[in-house]
Amino acid sequence: MSEFDLIQRYFTRATPGVELGVGDDAALLRVDPGMELVVSTDMLVEGTHFFPDADPRSLGHKALAVNLSDIAAMGARPRWALLALAIPSEDADWLRAFSEGFFALGERHGVELIGGDTTRGPLNLCVTIIGETPRGTALRRSSAQVGDDIWVSGTLGDAALALAHLRGELSLPETAHAACARRLHQPEPRVELGLALLGVANSAIDVSDGLLADLGHILERSGVGAEIRLDALPVSDAWHNLLHTGIGRRCLLAGGDDYELCFTAPASRNAEVAALAGRTGLPLTRIGVIVRERGCKVIGTDGNIMAIGETGYDHFK
Amino acid sequence: MSEFDLIQRYFTRATPGVELGVGDDAALLRVDPGMELVVSTDMLVEGTHFFPDADPRSLGHKALAVNLSDIAAMGARPRWALLALAIPSEDADWLRAFSEGFFALGERHGVELIGGDTTRGPLNLCVTIIGETPRGTALRRSSAQVGDDIWVSGTLGDAALALAHLRGELSLPETAHAACARRLHQPEPRVELGLALLGVANSAIDVSDGLLADLGHILERSGVGAEIRLDALPVSDAWHNLLHTGIGRRCLLAGGDDYELCFTAPASRNAEVAALAGRTGLPLTRIGVIVRERGCKVIGTDGNIMAIGETGYDHFK
Repeated sequence: MSEFDLIQRYFTRATPGVELGVGDDAALLRVDPGMELVVSTDMLVEGTHFFPDADPRSLGHKALAVNLSDIAAMGARPRWALLALAIPSEDADWLRAFSEGFFALGERHGVELIGGDTTRGPLNLCVTIIGETPRGTALRRSSAQVGDDIWVSGTLGDAALALAHLRGELSLPETAHAACARRLHQPEPRVELGLALLGVANSAIDVSDGLLADLGHILERSGVGAEIRLDALPVSDAWHNLLHTGIGRRCLLAGGDDYELCFTAPASRNAEVAALAGRTGLPLTRIGVIVRERGCKVIGTDGNIMAIGETGYDHFK
Repeated sequence: MSEFDLIQRYFTRATPGVELGVGDDAALLRVDPGMELVVSTDMLVEGTHFFPDADPRSLGHKALAVNLSDIAAMGARPRWALLALAIPSEDADWLRAFSEGFFALGERHGVELIGGDTTRGPLNLCVTIIGETPRGTALRRSSAQVGDDIWVSGTLGDAALALAHLRGELSLPETAHAACARRLHQPEPRVELGLALLGVANSAIDVSDGLLADLGHILERSGVGAEIRLDALPVSDAWHNLLHTGIGRRCLLAGGDDYELCFTAPASRNAEVAALAGRTGLPLTRIGVIVRERGCKVIGTDGNIMAIGETGYDHFK
């Protein structure tokens, strides 16, 4: 199969939302006046982000999901994606499953694949995502205010638990592992929540590198600090007995790949945030507060400030 | 160095052309009413697109150049880029040289780096490029008309000659090799020409996979055919004596990586096209004509139709 046939067979679907989609030197798209574009790119590499035997359907899902999560963190609506793909060989089953996973998630969020590149090389999935938001409304990392409550969606640390289990660092019961593995391999980007937070939250980020690292970006950019309570962090049923272990705390505070949203909102908006939880069917939990003094303090279960070591996943540490 | 520091040090420059650049979950940009966006992505992989010992400054240049070339082929003005980079290790000298090559070319074309991703993995450079063009003006592959003249810019086949030389398939004299190697490693995207072709050309493509393959895309999309003359193809001084060799003809007709523009225009616009050559300082050569009968005929130096085998570079053949 030629590169052209491969693209035609696996990666070409209708794109009514653009002037021109896959098949020319570039795609053409129009933006409504009053809107601005929200653009991000994320690369997943075999051996760094996923195991060599990773399920291709899940990979297709995840390659798009991590990008949708960035759009969600800006409170924007995802619209279009480009996919650059390096594959070691042309494996029809793999390509079919990968593209199905990608398109299944894309269609659920109204995202069209409008361009890309396919080439031979060590497995590498690079997605660029383009979303839209009314001008001036996007949720930034830089606008947290002293006194804001700090919230997170869903539960934290499950993906890190699954990874620790796969690495033999701990052993989860089968049902717990299945639930956590789903979080790791098929994360659900919080697009609907991000959209609902526009006009409510002051700042937001997605938890991709770990709570402390990602909240740290908000603090750094906003020039503020935070106090969060360990016992307030929302965890799933898989966490039974794990909260008091070192590895459990590490997964909870520093585990990446959750793709929940962490956001700050004025205390005066608490009722609205609570209502959003009902509307989106997603638990939203207040985990702390933004303070003037820089840095992030974590209050342990004994009421004392915890000594924090690892603060998140970094590809270059 | 953390991923954050690495981005800060090597890949963060002023981006006055956007609302928000590097440093949040996504970049924010606005599009003037009346304009449409032109978006493309290209991935360069070590071992597939370049040798493991490739000069990092040239790689930075080329990773952006191949993307600018796609924007040029649409007749659009490049504005913004995103860079996703997988690197096997954090090598300060390499990163500095790479980023210098990238930004030097970007600044020459007014392109801002507004986002990206850095991660550990086998060397992989994925750039997404965003350009602008007045609505409805972009040059497409699909609108060549029967009777159009077929033009190419600059000279063809030099990059392929350099590659053949590096592979030991032929031996170029030193000055010829130096000139061809520059075409291979630091291609010059024809952005100014692309912009000048708006309103003049009917269709365009950049020659990245080889003349026959890329012209073939125009023919396929436009539902037409072509007749081109081998002795009309523009070649550089390096081609002395090579035109009549098998490998020479292969490099000329099927060699990739030239990044010249191939375009079609009505014969009535010939004087305008010739004037563009003067204005852009870039030779423009008429190589043939668009015909009704499908397929591409190449007329050899003996006046007979050549039998054509390889038609271009394909990563999956």
